[in-house]
Amino acid sequence: MVTTEEQLAQFIIDTPAQSISGSLLKEVKRCVINLMAVCIYSARDPSLDILLNVFRVEGAKPKATVVGSGFRTSMQNTALANGYLAHLEDYDDTHFPTVIHPSAPVIPAALAMGEYLGSSGQEVLAASAIGMEVCCRIGMAVHPAHYDAGWHITGTCGVFGSVAAAGRLLGLDKGQMVHAMGIAGTQAAGVREVFGSMAKPLHPGRAAQSGVLAALLAKGGFTGSKTILEGRRGFPAVASTSYDLTKATTGLGQDWEIRMNALKPYSCGVVNHCLIDAMVALRIKDGVTPQAIKNIKARVHPLVLELVDRRHPKVGLESKFSFQHSMAVGLVDGAAHPAQYTDMKATDPVIVGLRDRISATVDAGMAEDATQVTITLNDGRTYTQEVLHATGSPENPMTDAQLEVKFRTLAGDALSKARVNTLLEELWTLDDAPDIGQVMSRTKIRGRTVRN
Amino acid sequence: MVTTEEQLAQFIIDTPAQSISGSLLKEVKRCVINLMAVCIYSARDPSLDILLNVFRVEGAKPKATVVGSGFRTSMQNTALANGYLAHLEDYDDTHFPTVIHPSAPVIPAALAMGEYLGSSGQEVLAASAIGMEVCCRIGMAVHPAHYDAGWHITGTCGVFGSVAAAGRLLGLDKGQMVHAMGIAGTQAAGVREVFGSMAKPLHPGRAAQSGVLAALLAKGGFTGSKTILEGRRGFPAVASTSYDLTKATTGLGQDWEIRMNALKPYSCGVVNHCLIDAMVALRIKDGVTPQAIKNIKARVHPLVLELVDRRHPKVGLESKFSFQHSMAVGLVDGAAHPAQYTDMKATDPVIVGLRDRISATVDAGMAEDATQVTITLNDGRTYTQEVLHATGSPENPMTDAQLEVKFRTLAGDALSKARVNTLLEELWTLDDAPDIGQVMSRTKIRGRTVRN
Repeated sequence: MVTTEEQLAQFIIDTPAQSISGSLLKEVKRCVINLMAVCIYSARDPSLDILLNVFRVEGAKPKATVVGSGFRTSMQNTALANGYLAHLEDYDDTHFPTVIHPSAPVIPAALAMGEYLGSSGQEVLAASAIGMEVCCRIGMAVHPAHYDAGWHITGTCGVFGSVAAAGRLLGLDKGQMVHAMGIAGTQAAGVREVFGSMAKPLHPGRAAQSGVLAALLAKGGFTGSKTILEGRRGFPAVASTSYDLTKATTGLGQDWEIRMNALKPYSCGVVNHCLIDAMVALRIKDGVTPQAIKNIKARVHPLVLELVDRRHPKVGLESKFSFQHSMAVGLVDGAAHPAQYTDMKATDPVIVGLRDRISATVDAGMAEDATQVTITLNDGRTYTQEVLHATGSPENPMTDAQLEVKFRTLAGDALSKARVNTLLEELWTLDDAPDIGQVMSRTKIRGRTVRN
Repeated sequence: MVTTEEQLAQFIIDTPAQSISGSLLKEVKRCVINLMAVCIYSARDPSLDILLNVFRVEGAKPKATVVGSGFRTSMQNTALANGYLAHLEDYDDTHFPTVIHPSAPVIPAALAMGEYLGSSGQEVLAASAIGMEVCCRIGMAVHPAHYDAGWHITGTCGVFGSVAAAGRLLGLDKGQMVHAMGIAGTQAAGVREVFGSMAKPLHPGRAAQSGVLAALLAKGGFTGSKTILEGRRGFPAVASTSYDLTKATTGLGQDWEIRMNALKPYSCGVVNHCLIDAMVALRIKDGVTPQAIKNIKARVHPLVLELVDRRHPKVGLESKFSFQHSMAVGLVDGAAHPAQYTDMKATDPVIVGLRDRISATVDAGMAEDATQVTITLNDGRTYTQEVLHATGSPENPMTDAQLEVKFRTLAGDALSKARVNTLLEELWTLDDAPDIGQVMSRTKIRGRTVRN
């Protein structure tokens, strides 16, 4: 009888990169591009310096690169910092069925280990795909009881994904991989109580680090449990009141759970997204300007009024939880990046004025990611836009062009336009890169300035 | 209303070392001596090299000392390695009400941070006392549901103790200390499924490391939750089906939970201990030699036959789970250190022969740590020894002399007699040491040889 752990280990170490479909690898490449955009943007946050200062005090050999900072340190430190950056703005990807953010714990582990080993871009992509798949599948096995109990599933299940990615790149054999999962699995951690603090993005950071450590230890012969999933005191049994391990392995390698992963086009809660979509579509209609608008009326799913009905947020963070603000910036700026959720933007007179003219009524028949928005102009003209699935849902993924805009917007503050072009080009052709380290060296920002 | 977190933070940062009673500080000093003995012994285990090799590959500044190895590395790495060594032989201390092993996650954090900061011995002792107290009290709050669910309470609650010790030494203010507890608490990890593997002692190692990391981050301004204990999604609510937070704070600073912590005199499961005590007392009776013994009969608590009835273990590890073996070595060697549980000892003809003459009958009225043993000699003489509380229980702690013997036995394999004497002297006067780093430098073993 082959155990769940053995099946996963086999999948992790034995799936040839060539056997992973091009469309799947491309999706993971898009995740890498998205992660790089978010990390480069977030690297200007002062909190990164708190991490880097600890690294400086403790020292380490420069084996891998913290994105956006130009800082090179150990694989574990790098995985920690990049996992942190990837989730800092809550602007990473989401596996819809579990709300896991699989890129943040997994890709940084793959990048750090790949840079250390001189792995190719294709190897890093394949390891990321497999790691993200393992992460999401273990998430499916414990969902929803695990998250409902208060665990931050990205942090907990993240360790299984990061150790898969790191262990595969490190060339663990099957027995070592099983032990590595045991070593990583018993480090699964992260409670939702810390949401709203820096400790939240620390979760995927630590998960990435734990996976790297576990893989390195297992390679050296360190042992963990062989039954971290099936055992009576294993992770699912201990950290979830109910679970179904068949979800971890049924159709493994055939049906990819990461097909249900999607990138976010807007830097705010997902319930706002269809409304922003509508505004982005309506803003280009003839005669539509903030001044010309009499009112904007939306029909929305009940959750919108429950979660994000906040007409006049005072500060940036608050504005992320305002559908009125999200719609207003969608109309004025045609975007909802972090720049649209600053303190300044929250109190911008044009935005404030527009928010006063926006209202929503609940339509119980409306899907969670759907809306219908009607703009009425002062001159009597009206435009109506229907959105069936918000951009960034599995049914309506961001286009490559939209992803490029996101990348250019987030990275453009920190990198020259020429550098952005080079990096984007390299990332889109990541499968051809002979050495991931060369790509990582491009993420180094000259003269990084810390945002305050 | 002062929160639980604030009360604990206040206790952690504001309790003057001088206000901690001499007897309590001495008990913690005994824990340090015990930990040093165990670490020095365990440092010859080949598995330590797996950890050290990862440290070598990743590099770090030599800020602190891995006991027994002479290896100097970062504070986090050192805390990880010493926490690992302290628990590797399961020969560390036990807080009886919760089965937490509080020294292993806490003292290594205090030592690593103290060495980095140049703290005095007294400061390290006070930080250890306070860290161990916080660890045990949070353990009391979630006990027994938490451990019963499958969590390794030493790993999980360990993070609260290690961050308390590290944060106090680092001079965190109250607000920082609350955040540090939030950062550390959301890293609580470790499931019992990995018992029997190297990942078990990794738990206190990681807990020690997590506390050091959290303290360093909080000092830099990193934030965690202020409600990691009281919050709806905090550690107790998420990781325990029931808990009582009043146990974390009632009588804090007056009634010390670590009074219920005790050192182990024997390197095996605690149910054997009263039986070994009896044999150590009986072996010096007139005419008692292995050859002269007709039989040995014990009256025991039912758990003995349930857990450790194994007449002829074949290998060392198995022999730890044999009351017959434990009694036999107690009689022949007068000790039950790791040397009494080797493969060679398990098959020693004298021990094997004696095990055949040992039996036990259940006495339902017997306490768990009590026994009555009668030896009958071939010449008809009999001796009976009653043990009311096994040595190493809170009611019958190891004497200083017994602790010295344990230290000399465990450290004596690795250090010269002169070095053992110097080190013991320095540890007994640890409260007078101006710089903990000087003491740590004495733990460096010249020409460390790895045991295979």
